[in-house]
Amino acid sequence: MSVPHDRIPTPAWNAWGSGEDASPLDESLRALLEEGLGVPRRDTPPVDESEVRLRESELPAEVRSELAGIVGASRVRTDDHTRLRHAGGKSTPDLLRRRSGEAEVADAVVFPGEHAEVENVLRCCSRHGIAVTAFGGGTSVVGGVEPLRGGFAAVVTLDLARLDGLLRLDTESGTATLQAGLRGPEAEELLGAHGYSLGHFPQSFEYATIGGFAATRSSGQASAGYGRFDDMVVDLRAATPRGTLGPGRAPASAAGPDLRQLLLGSEGTFGVITEVTVRIHPVPAEKHHEAWSFPDFGAGSAALRELARTGALPTVARLSDEVETGLNLSSEEVGGPAASDGCLLVTTYEGSAEHVAARHSEAAELLRAAGGASLGPEPAISWERGRFHAPHLRDALLDVNALAETLETATSWANLHATHAAVRDALTESLTEQGTPPLVMCHVSHVYPTGASLYFTVACARGREPVEQWRRAKRAAAEAIAAVGATITHHHAVGLDHREWMTAEVGDLGVEVLRAVKSAVDPEGVLNPGKLVPPE
Amino acid sequence: MSVPHDRIPTPAWNAWGSGEDASPLDESLRALLEEGLGVPRRDTPPVDESEVRLRESELPAEVRSELAGIVGASRVRTDDHTRLRHAGGKSTPDLLRRRSGEAEVADAVVFPGEHAEVENVLRCCSRHGIAVTAFGGGTSVVGGVEPLRGGFAAVVTLDLARLDGLLRLDTESGTATLQAGLRGPEAEELLGAHGYSLGHFPQSFEYATIGGFAATRSSGQASAGYGRFDDMVVDLRAATPRGTLGPGRAPASAAGPDLRQLLLGSEGTFGVITEVTVRIHPVPAEKHHEAWSFPDFGAGSAALRELARTGALPTVARLSDEVETGLNLSSEEVGGPAASDGCLLVTTYEGSAEHVAARHSEAAELLRAAGGASLGPEPAISWERGRFHAPHLRDALLDVNALAETLETATSWANLHATHAAVRDALTESLTEQGTPPLVMCHVSHVYPTGASLYFTVACARGREPVEQWRRAKRAAAEAIAAVGATITHHHAVGLDHREWMTAEVGDLGVEVLRAVKSAVDPEGVLNPGKLVPPE
Repeated sequence: MSVPHDRIPTPAWNAWGSGEDASPLDESLRALLEEGLGVPRRDTPPVDESEVRLRESELPAEVRSELAGIVGASRVRTDDHTRLRHAGGKSTPDLLRRRSGEAEVADAVVFPGEHAEVENVLRCCSRHGIAVTAFGGGTSVVGGVEPLRGGFAAVVTLDLARLDGLLRLDTESGTATLQAGLRGPEAEELLGAHGYSLGHFPQSFEYATIGGFAATRSSGQASAGYGRFDDMVVDLRAATPRGTLGPGRAPASAAGPDLRQLLLGSEGTFGVITEVTVRIHPVPAEKHHEAWSFPDFGAGSAALRELARTGALPTVARLSDEVETGLNLSSEEVGGPAASDGCLLVTTYEGSAEHVAARHSEAAELLRAAGGASLGPEPAISWERGRFHAPHLRDALLDVNALAETLETATSWANLHATHAAVRDALTESLTEQGTPPLVMCHVSHVYPTGASLYFTVACARGREPVEQWRRAKRAAAEAIAAVGATITHHHAVGLDHREWMTAEVGDLGVEVLRAVKSAVDPEGVLNPGKLVPPE
Repeated sequence: MSVPHDRIPTPAWNAWGSGEDASPLDESLRALLEEGLGVPRRDTPPVDESEVRLRESELPAEVRSELAGIVGASRVRTDDHTRLRHAGGKSTPDLLRRRSGEAEVADAVVFPGEHAEVENVLRCCSRHGIAVTAFGGGTSVVGGVEPLRGGFAAVVTLDLARLDGLLRLDTESGTATLQAGLRGPEAEELLGAHGYSLGHFPQSFEYATIGGFAATRSSGQASAGYGRFDDMVVDLRAATPRGTLGPGRAPASAAGPDLRQLLLGSEGTFGVITEVTVRIHPVPAEKHHEAWSFPDFGAGSAALRELARTGALPTVARLSDEVETGLNLSSEEVGGPAASDGCLLVTTYEGSAEHVAARHSEAAELLRAAGGASLGPEPAISWERGRFHAPHLRDALLDVNALAETLETATSWANLHATHAAVRDALTESLTEQGTPPLVMCHVSHVYPTGASLYFTVACARGREPVEQWRRAKRAAAEAIAAVGATITHHHAVGLDHREWMTAEVGDLGVEVLRAVKSAVDPEGVLNPGKLVPPE
């Protein structure tokens, strides 16, 4: 079973969206940019594809012919069109570079069709010393899919789009085995045909893939109800240059360390995930939306903490800070003037009618007791309607001389407000010093009994060298995160951009353990060089 | 903060319990043994301690003096009394061997008092080629704490009892940092003084330790409500011969593979866990007990599956199969003749009054819809009262010529009944062939959205060579478990007894990954040799 790909618009090489879905900024937002952030009105369109010059492919002929023998000649592509569309991810610096005509490309893009082909490609590349970058939806915002040679003769990008099947559906156990190349909507469509859903809706949902979700420890907007993607994974299968890893086990096991947890978050450096068995849910019979207003971020986050501790979490729980609430994520998205005071909490409840009723009644009581006032369903419905929109909005912002980017972290409840303030201040100071005072918004969108995530959105005027402008601001934020003891990433993963923070995250010996694992499965080091694991 | 140890009775060297808590079997049970299982009435008392001959300590004088320099001379013990009390775990074969006077002992028992001492002991032993077995409560039933030399000159047991403090309590985040040597009741007492509880109540609760819970992926009877121990862990700290591992991170993170999951379940082979930061809960304000009767195991397990999928699980959910229900776990424990027909489900609900009411109402409706009939609170209260009793009962059974042992597994819901039948049949066939037809009882005590655990209790007459008798039965069960695709252990861990099944569990390459991790943190291989990781 697979889904026709042509129903999902292909994203543009230089934008998040396809272009078809682009909508120009409304006048109120343009006015805010100009008056609030001092963004001069000037269009900053990307260069045309014809102006982009890519380096020549240097894939050795012998390797090309061997790869063609594995996947078929037409599935080893070295043309510029294909290579440009695999030239890294979708962070703002990635897009800025590509919009200006710069692109780091692979020597070839290879399209395997099954696990055995992936494994053979990896063996071939390992033998010939060719680097391999796995590529799913290409939505990495941390440089995770940047095709780097890492000292090897050439680099091949492995596009997993052809691994697009639902391999097994076990409705009694509530699990599905999905191939890694399935995009979010494709997986939902395949499962939906049987009455099931995965319940994983990150902002990258439209383009990102099942394999990517696993490889980066993705977390979706409904994580309060359905868990992070890593929570959903029952089993996975990965190809490595040394064979297959498939640490399959029961729903829970005490048979030693959990090796699934080494593949989750491994970002293509320990192997290429080809199949993931995940927990699924019946398509919810009932859905209830309710937005709440809290006097401030402190009261709102304390309310979320109560829900998480009590075990009474809604399916979605997303709390905006005062700035984000005030801006109302551009009014067409969250809607309603009542929702722009204090702090807005969006909740949704999904499941059987009885479950939704029981959970809503328990949660609503806790939220009221914690100082929340119900705003009814509208702002929550409106949020849900626009929930994949923000990165498309970034495309529009980049077109009009603005800079916009996001970053995220997570920490304990006790450390939440210190982290919120530290990151906000670091971003504000760095960008203000650079002459482009920013708007810094934040929300909590993933909550746990012991803490929560913080997701920051930054917008400001574009400086003369916007890549360097953001690099400085991002470094200031990362240093603030490390200093306050939060994690460098809650769900964006490590890639290139967070690699230097990994030692702070897991310690020197932890990094050595990562290197030891890598050597065991990838002795030549060809898998996604330069990513995740700090160099020796 | 620490708890005086003398309040917990020290377990006997040849039994689960201390002896003080021993109660002779009641007449109805003795009759069942004789008439139902053909156990001839004969007392089979253990030998006296004075009859046990231990091998001499061969700890090199140089090492002894170095260890004494680290922990103090009085904390390096080589006397027989101490060594015998660290002579391995508490499986039935362990007890049978010790009851007959056989004991595998270490060359010394060392009692470090803090993390740095543990690390220095490990460095010293690694340098001198001395094996080290970490020892918490000594309750392993898989040979996990058996002091094996593994080709080294000597073996030292590291008793962690002095690591008995509550290091940090963060009530805002709901976490506590506990030292590894704290036993279950000690940890609960320290937390209880502040109004908190861990909610981890495995059958070994009375003796087992925080470090052991983490090192073996323990799962408690209230796992439906509070999670498995590995779910509760936010952070841990482990000493290794190469330094400290402390993969601390936020409640959730996408910063690469989760290295905590390599320490969880590592059974002292990758390092010695010295501190664990765990999620805690307010001592529940309300507790509701309710037992249910289901017509059969199929109906009962389908009901549990519904609860797990809906997210409406009680705090405790424990379903006995027909045999276990019929035997009623010896009538004084579960109580009431109404509870001995069909299949008994014990549920308890803990938390705030509102949470208990909401959760109970939702769950009860699902249980009724699934064919359950409420039996009221009594059988559940009665079960709870006796919930740590079963291994003490085993002591009594071993005294009267019976053989009793348990084993456990977990699998998907779709595979649950096939696994139940396969293991029951394998045990029954093997023991019947050996002339000792058994009683095989089973219950589900840990449920997940995608599957559940199965816990088997076996009782039969003791054969002439009971260690070999059980070895054969256990092998038949393990082969059945592997053949049916379930996990070799849900919460008893691997140790010696399950080691040969690890390749079936994680694959050849998975085993190589385990070896690579071990080499990185324990290059000389001194940590708990022979356990968990299959030899090359």
